[in-house]
Amino acid sequence: MSAAVVCIGTEITRGEIVNTNATWLCDELTSLGFDVTQVESIDDDRPRIAATLLRLARDHEVIVCTGGLGPTTDDLTTESAAVAAGLPLVRDPATVEVIVDRFRRLGRTLVAGNLKQADFPSGAVILANAVGTAPGFSMLLGAARVWFFPGVPMELKRIWGDHVRDTLREIAPNTTFQLRMRTFGQPESTVGQMLSGVEEQFPGVTIGYRASFPEIEVKVLARGADQQKARTLADSAASVVRHRLGAIVVAEGDQTMVGAVAQALRERKATLALAESCTGGLVAHMLTSEPASDYLLAAMVTYANEIKTALLGVPEGVLTEHGAVSRETAIAMAHGALRASGASFSVAITGIAGPTGGSPEKPVGLVHWAVGHPGGVETRDRVFVGDRGRIQRMAAFAALDLLRRTALGV
Amino acid sequence: MSAAVVCIGTEITRGEIVNTNATWLCDELTSLGFDVTQVESIDDDRPRIAATLLRLARDHEVIVCTGGLGPTTDDLTTESAAVAAGLPLVRDPATVEVIVDRFRRLGRTLVAGNLKQADFPSGAVILANAVGTAPGFSMLLGAARVWFFPGVPMELKRIWGDHVRDTLREIAPNTTFQLRMRTFGQPESTVGQMLSGVEEQFPGVTIGYRASFPEIEVKVLARGADQQKARTLADSAASVVRHRLGAIVVAEGDQTMVGAVAQALRERKATLALAESCTGGLVAHMLTSEPASDYLLAAMVTYANEIKTALLGVPEGVLTEHGAVSRETAIAMAHGALRASGASFSVAITGIAGPTGGSPEKPVGLVHWAVGHPGGVETRDRVFVGDRGRIQRMAAFAALDLLRRTALGV
Repeated sequence: MSAAVVCIGTEITRGEIVNTNATWLCDELTSLGFDVTQVESIDDDRPRIAATLLRLARDHEVIVCTGGLGPTTDDLTTESAAVAAGLPLVRDPATVEVIVDRFRRLGRTLVAGNLKQADFPSGAVILANAVGTAPGFSMLLGAARVWFFPGVPMELKRIWGDHVRDTLREIAPNTTFQLRMRTFGQPESTVGQMLSGVEEQFPGVTIGYRASFPEIEVKVLARGADQQKARTLADSAASVVRHRLGAIVVAEGDQTMVGAVAQALRERKATLALAESCTGGLVAHMLTSEPASDYLLAAMVTYANEIKTALLGVPEGVLTEHGAVSRETAIAMAHGALRASGASFSVAITGIAGPTGGSPEKPVGLVHWAVGHPGGVETRDRVFVGDRGRIQRMAAFAALDLLRRTALGV
Repeated sequence: MSAAVVCIGTEITRGEIVNTNATWLCDELTSLGFDVTQVESIDDDRPRIAATLLRLARDHEVIVCTGGLGPTTDDLTTESAAVAAGLPLVRDPATVEVIVDRFRRLGRTLVAGNLKQADFPSGAVILANAVGTAPGFSMLLGAARVWFFPGVPMELKRIWGDHVRDTLREIAPNTTFQLRMRTFGQPESTVGQMLSGVEEQFPGVTIGYRASFPEIEVKVLARGADQQKARTLADSAASVVRHRLGAIVVAEGDQTMVGAVAQALRERKATLALAESCTGGLVAHMLTSEPASDYLLAAMVTYANEIKTALLGVPEGVLTEHGAVSRETAIAMAHGALRASGASFSVAITGIAGPTGGSPEKPVGLVHWAVGHPGGVETRDRVFVGDRGRIQRMAAFAALDLLRRTALGV
């Protein structure tokens, strides 16, 4: 069943706010089983609002509309909706009473604009707003049912939960099911090739890809006669997908690379120390974006050579003979991090993030990384391509992936 | 001059990602002087992409379109654009060469999907992508000029900056001029109050606010008979704005908090060391997102108490008497960072980022921070409200702001 979302407000079309309402509504509608095919943001313009609603009502069964229900002169949604439906505006006495009462309690003075919020297209179903002055409402527009909400996220969510979600659940088709996996280590095109033929093998299944740099997310979406059948189909296809992708699958569902690393270490009751140079604390920041104090002991960002020696005990001879960006230095940093912290695992990264500092032998993007573990040290190196941020991010993920695989033995 | 933005991808219509591209493009187009009236997000559906482009081309002079240029089967934008314009797809040999060369350099295997990215509607202007495989392109559709970009934000922004912004500036109406300032330390409502009356004092000037957590960006937009007059007006208003806001203005134009800190330290030929606990490396990551090796010597993320003592020399007595989250520990960490690194400035942060670990005396969100400098140590503390990420980000900005003010003496 097809749904559309409309967000009204010049603050959106002028790029002054990020439209998180649209994302939230799309996620809600998708979870309920609707097929959201169109999301439109338009400015506060009466003819454009009416024309957009009428156009969307031709191809969608459900339309959800936010914004433009406020008290000021640039809030035009309600009257535009009435124009679109060819209905008069009618003032609702019960809503007037709620507004007057609210202002009395807050000790605020009522202005004419406030009562505008009690006007609705004739016959609309009014949806009480427990956390603000503007109620929502719903009405028919051609064959579509349209729900209108204030643009304030908290008020939208409250009215949605109080009056709309359950209604929509009853009319939703509920015949799809989706599973997601995060992969790291292969580009999108290769991941796509690894899965070629899966859609043909499982009719009703669509494989989707999303690059969330540097990971590729794979989405297995199944459609069936009902949700149970869709789920069974998604599970069957997902097991083939999982088998084909093998160790490049880092995590499933909502789990992240960081979550997978933390889980692998926690299952082994292992502790971790970091020695970062070119990634400048990015790995530490990633790990500590979720609680990590039970396994992460310390992280050292050693930019200067003298600090690599002072904090990590990297021998001066290694630095002068092989350079700060070398396999030997990465190994010494990994050992040093274990020694300085007493951790059971360590990650060390040294490289040239750019934009300057490269040479023909050691170009910008060259990174050496090492994982120290109870059985020794694993090392890798690569020349990453891109700007400074991209090189740092690739290096951080590559090092975390080596840690994950080392800890899991895959 | 009227502009529209189209974002293509099921990940948007399904609510899986927040559409920051749309916000960024709306802001860019508005700053250039365009009137963005419509922003549409649609799923990966060939007929809908073509129909949307054709419909928008009827009422807009400029259309900007992102997403769907990838190598996989669900990337349908280019072929849909060709269908909309009634043009054949033509493979561009120069782009093929760039792609083949890129794959050779990366040591990756080319698959058929990759070459799809060298196909363009006949006559399109190809826009090289310096940071990814998918070039952008532009073409005429009726009377509208349409620009197509990959959906990856970094690639969009790079191609926009390399090939599109200057072109659009030439065709834009060009009677506006905007200046921007970043502020830190006061909420949006207070910043607004500090600037009340400025718009009345300078007719033609609009003051805009954008919360870019935890900073508030202030935009001074002036409209004049031509751009020179608009610029003069914006400059006059900006000097009043600057005076009223005082030290909460962190940076102007494209400069960031990190840039302001780096500049303040460089002007003093100062060096810096960090000792982070609850921010877990976020400050180090922020500073090293731009080249920092000329002033940043080291950063130590000392999560465990024993590590605070081992690496930073925080006396065990301070930790047992005052606790790890205390003014005394912050001071000891700031001193320890100076001592361990030989830097002239240090920043130390210790706190409770949550979600657990709080107590009635030391609630989640309590953070102590300190700046060590040649004349002594400055300290601050506050209970920040919000989730873990928000607390870490507020604490990092607050500490950097104290460093900036200490270094600048403001």
